[in-house]
Amino acid sequence: MAHINLPPDLPGIRGPMAFRPETARPLNELVDVLLRGPHPLSPGERELIATVVSSENDCRYCQTIHGAIAAHHLNGDEHLVAQVKRDFERAPVSDKLKALLVIAEKTARSGRYVLGEDVARARAAGATDLEIHDTVLMAAVFCMCNRYVDGLATWAPDDPEFYRQRAAFIAERGYVNATRAPSGSPAPAR
Amino acid sequence: MAHINLPPDLPGIRGPMAFRPETARPLNELVDVLLRGPHPLSPGERELIATVVSSENDCRYCQTIHGAIAAHHLNGDEHLVAQVKRDFERAPVSDKLKALLVIAEKTARSGRYVLGEDVARARAAGATDLEIHDTVLMAAVFCMCNRYVDGLATWAPDDPEFYRQRAAFIAERGYVNATRAPSGSPAPAR
Repeated sequence: MAHINLPPDLPGIRGPMAFRPETARPLNELVDVLLRGPHPLSPGERELIATVVSSENDCRYCQTIHGAIAAHHLNGDEHLVAQVKRDFERAPVSDKLKALLVIAEKTARSGRYVLGEDVARARAAGATDLEIHDTVLMAAVFCMCNRYVDGLATWAPDDPEFYRQRAAFIAERGYVNATRAPSGSPAPAR
Repeated sequence: MAHINLPPDLPGIRGPMAFRPETARPLNELVDVLLRGPHPLSPGERELIATVVSSENDCRYCQTIHGAIAAHHLNGDEHLVAQVKRDFERAPVSDKLKALLVIAEKTARSGRYVLGEDVARARAAGATDLEIHDTVLMAAVFCMCNRYVDGLATWAPDDPEFYRQRAAFIAERGYVNATRAPSGSPAPAR
């Protein structure tokens, strides 16, 4: 049971977001810019960064939903997502993404663990300042989301099909819009 | 030197925020709602939560600037801020704030460390669902900010007077407005 009184039908981050729409709006806007805005990294690659960070932080809801969104963007390739979570250095993704995932994982533990040599590796693989900046900020944002979800002891569905359907909904609508009620009205007030 | 090419005159989070105003805007809006919006916790108490989390994460810029903002709101009492950072259980703050600081510190390490007994202690001291929710989210937000600042290897001024002056500016204007140039024009583009 969650630590505070949340709408019981909304799993993961959706309960706290419905409880406090004033903070949900800018939080979702930030995630929309980072994960869905115009970018040299594809939405699937950016969702993989979110997934790896959430896995590093052991947040069940976040790693499962963002893994499902990543797979949705990557032609449904759930096997690739599992490979990246298990050992991204051996997964069939670009050298640039591997180097950025190292930076993301280190940022998740502490920003001070990111070394000049990590950034040099990413640059050698073609990463720009924007990609390095956004990788650090994406990792930081999911360190926030993971703590928000787990610090309030929210619940996470077991059924993988739940995550697949929700992933398709978010991939189509975006984070800000997916948190609104289906009618398009704002999320229910607490 | 920072890991990417940032405006050299802007310390801490201000360099990355000027580099990427698209993400700075929602991030600062989130911080303004949480730390400066209408609330049962005073702005000074909320800045103490930000300070303790940033100290737990060993982020020099964030713990110093938010400590200075907390002191600004608390009649300039820098000694109290230092006491709270060193050992808040023995500091002259309310039992409710002490209980919320326990939740914040645990959230900083991992959301899963927050236990029912921590929340029960906060409730017994008078904390509401909103205060518990916002404490978890404030802690989570500063875990993000700390990683953003340190993951890009930004610099932090040494002079305490810098932080006092910047604190007064932020306390007067708010986070969104303080990141704009003095003329009121948007922060410089990268």
